[in-house]
Parts: sequence; C-alpha cells; structure tokens
Amino acid sequence: MITRASPPPPLTHNGNALANLKAHTEWTEFTKGEFKLKPFEDRDIDIAIEVCGVCASDLHTINGGWGDAPLPLCVGHEVVGKAVKVGDAVKTIKVGDRVGVGAQIQADLTCANCKADQENYCPNAVDTYGAPYKDGTLSQGGYASHIRAHEYFTFKIPENIESAIAAPMLCAGITVYSPLVRLGAGPGKKVAIVGLGGLGHYAVLWAVALGAEVYVLSHTPAKKDDALKMGAKHFIVTNEEGWEKDLNFTFDFILNTADAMHHFDMKKYFSTLKVMGRFHTVGFGDHPIPTLMAQDFAPNGCYLGASHIGNRPEMLAMLDLASKQNIKSWIEEIPISEKGCGEAVKRVSENDVRFRFVLTKFDDAFGKRS
Amino acid sequence: MITRASPPPPLTHNGNALANLKAHTEWTEFTKGEFKLKPFEDRDIDIAIEVCGVCASDLHTINGGWGDAPLPLCVGHEVVGKAVKVGDAVKTIKVGDRVGVGAQIQADLTCANCKADQENYCPNAVDTYGAPYKDGTLSQGGYASHIRAHEYFTFKIPENIESAIAAPMLCAGITVYSPLVRLGAGPGKKVAIVGLGGLGHYAVLWAVALGAEVYVLSHTPAKKDDALKMGAKHFIVTNEEGWEKDLNFTFDFILNTADAMHHFDMKKYFSTLKVMGRFHTVGFGDHPIPTLMAQDFAPNGCYLGASHIGNRPEMLAMLDLASKQNIKSWIEEIPISEKGCGEAVKRVSENDVRFRFVLTKFDDAFGKRS
Repeated sequence: MITRASPPPPLTHNGNALANLKAHTEWTEFTKGEFKLKPFEDRDIDIAIEVCGVCASDLHTINGGWGDAPLPLCVGHEVVGKAVKVGDAVKTIKVGDRVGVGAQIQADLTCANCKADQENYCPNAVDTYGAPYKDGTLSQGGYASHIRAHEYFTFKIPENIESAIAAPMLCAGITVYSPLVRLGAGPGKKVAIVGLGGLGHYAVLWAVALGAEVYVLSHTPAKKDDALKMGAKHFIVTNEEGWEKDLNFTFDFILNTADAMHHFDMKKYFSTLKVMGRFHTVGFGDHPIPTLMAQDFAPNGCYLGASHIGNRPEMLAMLDLASKQNIKSWIEEIPISEKGCGEAVKRVSENDVRFRFVLTKFDDAFGKRS
Repeated sequence: MITRASPPPPLTHNGNALANLKAHTEWTEFTKGEFKLKPFEDRDIDIAIEVCGVCASDLHTINGGWGDAPLPLCVGHEVVGKAVKVGDAVKTIKVGDRVGVGAQIQADLTCANCKADQENYCPNAVDTYGAPYKDGTLSQGGYASHIRAHEYFTFKIPENIESAIAAPMLCAGITVYSPLVRLGAGPGKKVAIVGLGGLGHYAVLWAVALGAEVYVLSHTPAKKDDALKMGAKHFIVTNEEGWEKDLNFTFDFILNTADAMHHFDMKKYFSTLKVMGRFHTVGFGDHPIPTLMAQDFAPNGCYLGASHIGNRPEMLAMLDLASKQNIKSWIEEIPISEKGCGEAVKRVSENDVRFRFVLTKFDDAFGKRS
C-alpha cells in the first residue's frame, strides 16, 4: 500500500486497454487501445489495475455468443488494483487501498431493489463493461491500466488474500456465493454442484466452508481428485447410466455452473431434489434449456431458476469468509499482453484451465502507475 | 348424520360406478359398471358418496391427454359422502360422519417425505383413481356409489360447509391452497393468479382470505366482474399489448392455473416478479412449456416450478379457513347419470363452467345407501 502526498493528475482515459477492436469473429485478437472514462463523480474511485481474472462472460461477449456487443470493447470484470484517486464523498476506501471490482459498476441506489439490497437486480444497473452510463460513455473492463468505479461496487480486499487469488472471487466467486447463501447452504444441507470449472470450483469451496455436504456432479471422472481436495464428499459421474437412481429426493438444492444444460436430462436432475428443492443455474450457455412439461416439476414440487452475481453485503461476507478460513482460489496466471489475452479467452473456450485464469504483470504492459 | 345400531354388510364392490369402459376416443361415454374394492384394512373407511366434483384431471385421464389410462376406469376425486364403515384402528372418523376424499387415497406414511408432512410426494402414493394398490386392485374414483379410503386421506367436513360446496375444495381447492400458503400469501403480499377457472377461482378466494392483494391475469376481459366479486383488487387482460409494462418487479409470486402455458410469453410473466419471485404452475396442459434460456431467469433471479395437490395439515387448515370465513365455492350442479357425467366432462373441456361442476343426486342414481 502507498500513501500519496499529493493527488494524481486527473485521468481521462483508461490507458492502453487490451481490447477487441474488430469483429466478433476475431474474438481472440486483442489490440491496445484507449477508451474515454466516464466523468469523475464524488463517489467514484480510480483504480490502477494490478490483476484481472478472465471470465467466460468475457468470451461470450466478445465472440457474440450472447448477442452483438459494442465493439471495440475492453472486457474483464474481476479486477484488483490500487485506489489512486477517490471522490470527495467516498467513505469506505482511501487512496492506496487495495480494492476489487466485479461485474457490476453502478446502480441507481434509490429504487426498491437497491433499497432492499438487491442492487444486482437494479433496472438501472451498469455492467462493468459494454454498458452505457447516463452521459453516453460506454463502460470498459479490466484488461486495462485503470478503471473508474463507483464506491458501492468497490470492495477493500482483506490483507491476507493475494490480489491474484482475490480477483476471480469478484465475479466467479460471488456468482455462486450469493445463491449458496440465499438457498441456505450450511450444516445439515446436501448440496449438489454441477460442473467443476471456474464457477464450480468456488461453489465447492464456499459450500464446504459454509458447512454443507457437497456432491459434485460432472460428466466425466477427470476432476474427481480435485473435487475431493476442495472438500467435496461425493463425486457423481453423470454420463454413467443410472447415476440418479440412488439420489432420489436427496439434495436440498442443485447449483449448476455448467453452460451445457441443453445436453441435460432435466427430469433426472429434478428427481434428485428434495420436495420443493431448487435447480439453480448460474451457467448461461448459448442454447435453450431442454423442453419441459409443467408436470416435470410435479413429482417433488421443485423449481428451476437462475441468478445474477450478488449484492454488496454478500461480496463483503464472501471476502471475509475467504480471509477467515484462508480459502484459496485455484488459478493459473498469464501475463497480460495482446497475445496473453487471446490465449486466455481461447483456452477458457476450450475448458483448458484449472480453474480460473488471472492476467498479471500489469506493470510490464502498462508501466508502473502508482 | 346417522348413527348405525349395527355394522353394515361388508362391501366388496363400489356399486354401479359411472365409468368410461371403452376407448380414450369415447371419453364422453359413461356406462354403469362395478369395480372390486381393495381389501378392507384397519385404517380404511367406506364412504357412501353424496356428491363428487368434476376435475379437469378426470377428462385429461379418460381422453388419454396425459397418456394411456387403465380402462375401464371410474374417475372423480372430489368426493363427499357419509362414512358407513370404519376400520378398527380409525381414530379421526366415526360412522355417520360427513367426510371428504381428494386426489390422493394412500401413501406409505413411513418414508422421509411422509414423516415431513410431504405425503403428497410419497414415492408410494396411490392416486384416488387409476393407480394400483399393493394387492393389484386398481383404485377407482367417486363417480360411484361408494369409495374406500385410508383414514389419513379422509377429512371431516365442517358442519357449515354444504357437501356440494366442499367437494371441489378437496382437489381444486387444495391444489392452489397448498402453494399459496407455502409461498407465503398473506398481508402485504402481491399475488398474481393466472386463469380464472376451477382452480383459479379458488386461488383468488383463498389468497384474498389469507390477506394478500390479488391480481387476476386472464387472456380475456370476460371474467373481470367475477374476479372482482371474488375479492381480486386488479384484473389484467394479457392479450392486450404491453400488459406487463407497468408491472415490472411487482408480484411476490405468480400462481398459474391455466393449462395454456404453451401460449405464454414467459419472459413477460417473469418480468412482473419481484427479485427471487416464483412463477408457480398448477395448470398442467398437454403441451410443453415454451422454450427458455437459462438467462431468462436472470433479470430478477426468478424461479419456475409446480406442485402436486397438498398435504393433510393443509387440507384441514383450508377447510377450517373456509368454515371460519364462510367461503363458498362457485359451482354448477349436474345430477349424476350416464348422460350427466358425459355432459360435465365435455363442458369442462370447453371451459363452459363457472367455475366447477359438482355431480349430485347420487341417491337417484344409486339408491339410498345409508
């Protein structure tokens, strides 16, 4: 951490961001470019970025899988860095603090949802990249030298969590932490985690930390050892015929983190839920969910649903849990560069990562910034 | 009520049941026939039937819409009549009591679900008609002179509820009462009821009785006056363009009672739910739910699910609520006969009923039985 004697010069751009400048078809091609920052307001914080996680959302956005995105675009929403400037009204962060930013960077903070700690469902929410601010500026992500974030969506990183370990918690981590706590993961609960990728590995780590009995459901046995090391008690291979037979009415809920639901036999998954249990997904693929009849939910009165990231109290609680229990993300580091960004998103698209990439060595790419 | 001086002769058959004896294609053809009753056990009760409601399940079963049913079959699972014989171990009912039977007639009462008051999800549940008992006898419904039911699924009817008013509560009523209470309908809650048929009219009556603010969503304005008379505060016509616009994040939950979900724009319905709100359906059509993406649930973290009837405590609470608040089913009566049964199911299939048919005058069809 540093303490500045005098304020830095005001930023107008986010530095030489690594961005997809061209077409969705060229989604592995990153080029250096500059983007205008939104006007600085009194609860804003400028952050010199130190590391940034690589999320599957990044590639679904730049490859057009989730629809057209506004190119050129700089993605990345698992950002950790140092606060280099804080607005006059900022109370929770001071210059020099090590802070993180996740997938949401603004909300109106006045609507009924915001007031109910549901700001992640604010109708005026601004995503960390690719979304317009009121003044028309488009938000740009963390594959860049700097980011400007609203205080409410900026989180102090506990001292004992290294930046690269913390970064992917800010999207992948919170995306599964939020439904886990809202659905009551804890002692006495049996929780199934489907898929052991970036999201899934956090789901196992958090659910175990919260005291639940964790079952990992995966289509292959390849990740069994890792799952057990993370604390899962059971590992079920779902491409084995009859995998669901002995699991009738077993799980309090299922948290799906795989984006391959279109291949699932949903009735089999449903059959493993307790009465009124939920199949909750945070894996958003490019294909529809398999066709369902209303009566498919009736044998145990179950539910299917999804969620979108989490709220600020959950983010703070998650970071605190990780700090107290010394929970470590399982990551691979790639130095940020035009080539490094391309390699990272390509390998994420091939599921060739255990379990999350973090782009590092920002000083080498952007120079020392604080 | 009557008190018998001596026990009646043991029943072996259910009298001249009005049954569909032939093919699914001839589902409006009812003929008198006799069916063997299951062996009498010590918690069984024989009931001389006085009235029986006509449920959409009856016609979905006999017309083959829900798949092949074991014909010949006598349907009907909204039964009220007099207990004419009770087993030695029966504690809650005595001979002469006016009692009701709904859509479930047996469960193992020993499994984890049964012990958790989830006997409506018992894997060994026996439906009131068309389901095999352990001895191989097929259960037969209430378009008949008598029915034999397990005590746990036999409910004393409160004195101030007439038999014809009580009968449809036992399936239609409980099917919506259970999700209403489980999802927390009550003061301060905004509840949308989709469809105002047999199920929907109970959903409005109960939700109002429980203190919720009720919105009725219907595809036409035809039933607006009835909905308001039942206590709904708002009536929304869903074939009007933009019906959902002003309802963003409004409902605590939606209870769908229509079996036409395959025509619904689910994203519009979802958009009217509060964060983590539920679209709960008890309308089971013959067609799949419209195709959904996992991300369709994400804007408010909502859920889609269903339920199957309700449990015994809910049935008793519902009857008690109806008794205390003097809630009346909106019914039309049809005297039971071969012709009457055919007319009833045909008109239900055409939605030509306000809001539930009850077959009556069983003495005329089957003679005086107690």
